[in-house]
Amino acid sequence: MSAFSRFTAIAQTLPSTVPFVGPETIERTRGLAVRARIGANESGFGPAPSVIEAMRAAAAATWMYSDPENFELREALALHHGISRDNIAIGSGIDGLLGDIARLIVEPGTPVVTSLGGYPTFNYHVNGYGGRLVTVPYAGDREHLDGLLDAVRRENAPLVYLANPDNPMGSWWDADSIVAFAQALPETTLLVLDEAYGETAPAGTIPSIAALIGQPNILRMRTFSKAYGLAGARVGYAIGTLGNAQAFDKIRHHFGMARVSIAAALAALEDQTYLKDVIGRIAASRARITAIAKENGLAPLPSATNFVTIDCGRDGVHAKAIVDGLMEHGVFIRMPGIAPLNRCIRISTGPESDMALLEETLPLVLKAVGSRQ
Amino acid sequence: MSAFSRFTAIAQTLPSTVPFVGPETIERTRGLAVRARIGANESGFGPAPSVIEAMRAAAAATWMYSDPENFELREALALHHGISRDNIAIGSGIDGLLGDIARLIVEPGTPVVTSLGGYPTFNYHVNGYGGRLVTVPYAGDREHLDGLLDAVRRENAPLVYLANPDNPMGSWWDADSIVAFAQALPETTLLVLDEAYGETAPAGTIPSIAALIGQPNILRMRTFSKAYGLAGARVGYAIGTLGNAQAFDKIRHHFGMARVSIAAALAALEDQTYLKDVIGRIAASRARITAIAKENGLAPLPSATNFVTIDCGRDGVHAKAIVDGLMEHGVFIRMPGIAPLNRCIRISTGPESDMALLEETLPLVLKAVGSRQ
Repeated sequence: MSAFSRFTAIAQTLPSTVPFVGPETIERTRGLAVRARIGANESGFGPAPSVIEAMRAAAAATWMYSDPENFELREALALHHGISRDNIAIGSGIDGLLGDIARLIVEPGTPVVTSLGGYPTFNYHVNGYGGRLVTVPYAGDREHLDGLLDAVRRENAPLVYLANPDNPMGSWWDADSIVAFAQALPETTLLVLDEAYGETAPAGTIPSIAALIGQPNILRMRTFSKAYGLAGARVGYAIGTLGNAQAFDKIRHHFGMARVSIAAALAALEDQTYLKDVIGRIAASRARITAIAKENGLAPLPSATNFVTIDCGRDGVHAKAIVDGLMEHGVFIRMPGIAPLNRCIRISTGPESDMALLEETLPLVLKAVGSRQ
Repeated sequence: MSAFSRFTAIAQTLPSTVPFVGPETIERTRGLAVRARIGANESGFGPAPSVIEAMRAAAAATWMYSDPENFELREALALHHGISRDNIAIGSGIDGLLGDIARLIVEPGTPVVTSLGGYPTFNYHVNGYGGRLVTVPYAGDREHLDGLLDAVRRENAPLVYLANPDNPMGSWWDADSIVAFAQALPETTLLVLDEAYGETAPAGTIPSIAALIGQPNILRMRTFSKAYGLAGARVGYAIGTLGNAQAFDKIRHHFGMARVSIAAALAALEDQTYLKDVIGRIAASRARITAIAKENGLAPLPSATNFVTIDCGRDGVHAKAIVDGLMEHGVFIRMPGIAPLNRCIRISTGPESDMALLEETLPLVLKAVGSRQ
């Protein structure tokens, strides 16, 4: 009874919990130490040395607020993508931008379409504004484009979420399919196209910027959290029409960006050589995870991301036993939350020391949970 | 016409502009260079060397998300204040927390009480959720406690904002008056007590934590942006009952904190020796600004903050001419936005080089605007 009595009706229905369990919480509550942090699709390869240097150089200037217009970073991104800075909105990671988008579109009861088992943070934000989630099952472990389109039309939904490549499954559609999906949508439905894992996808996966830039019902989301190795910096951006990019200005936290984070993003964008190198290391690590899974009789799925999702062949209870068992050995991984995806575990790529620990511990865990003799 | 067609009714009424003009924007649009950045109440004295060192040390770990529970920082703050970590919510500066509070309480038409000319970012967030601002004029350049209380009762307002010490006027109430105000409020009205400038206030200004911790209709706001010199880190916190602190968990961006910023805040809290030293330098700089103002025939107001508000004796047009004129010389200051407060200019404390430039340029500007011969 210690809470204020007049929170909004929506606020009163929302749970007062931290919905996302970080590895730090697991360490604290289970008294375990993480030895391989390969569960949150961070990049254990780290940001570029040039980025770390830029952050260190920017530290002393932290007494100043960041530019509320984020001019310099938008300008650099515009140059990088060959568009105007007016097509870009900066936010606190894609997660922060998704919250802003939900606020701009979702009211109590608004139907919002996404995939059943898709990115939970998007759902969190939609629920937070009282929206009604309409979920479409995956088909063949990919988000089901035709099913999403049907649901959008049936519900007259103003908002649909699609991740390409997908988290948590690692699957993807080719660019042409994405463009066809985007163009088939009613213009009264905004597509949030989450391309957080775009840098690690095979050629031909990500539509050109030009292909979708003119559509007022599309926002594409990018981040420095994944391949660029800056999850802890909280820098993401949305690409869209001028009107949509400016819509964030209506509601965003204008002084919300950390100064060191902006310096990090600028330096990261500058160092494409490092990015290219890391993408190679991510690909090698994907192959390594895939091989380890196969050696252990599991079925790794193809991946266009910085993680590999592995079919463990049974149900969510079984997969969870593997996740928990690995954590006993200090190996932090995650798994999809909803059936039938939760027959899988999800392991992020990382440096060889992490892979070696995975290779060593996975057979022990599988044996303990009764998957192997 | 390039914006999506189905933004919410509230979103459609909000302006697509950046409401807060940073010095970077002034530099870009007017082709000027800032030589003394003493307009945004940042700390030109900077964060502690120990803090800069901690940030540099944390940079390489930026590949990891921050702990979504912010456990370590809440624990350190709890120890610092002698309370439980369950009484603390961490956010992206007070600005970010104010946005969360508005979201938790404000619906279209909700009356919200604040002072006429008070902190504009609070108003921005209330407007952003469709709230109806009820403003009470300052009395004697202080926020008018009785007037705020009357307005709360008359409107049956669920939310009232009070800054102590106040921005933009630098004025303050003693702790007893604040406690009496807080206790006189209906329990159906949440007081947001913004204590961003608490560290620089005279003894007896800030109520003890214990004095208000039990009231479910009070949230106290603190920040690392001002005396601690970390405006660009974006770390603030709210102190309240367990139920109120947890209410932020319903809606906040759980992975929203930058990792280097958390490291900075932890180190800043640790280095109370530096804080004490900076508070002394801020006081000396206040005295310096006060003297410069008097030498120029202006009337500096008493200040409990890291800035001095100066009555320039005429109207807002006159004050704005001084603000613009100083900027021509590279001296970035600000001014209150609304009459009668806008007869004043507001100058942040800073190192002696900034003060010297102010001393040199203010007489020139006053002469140019016709205030002096």
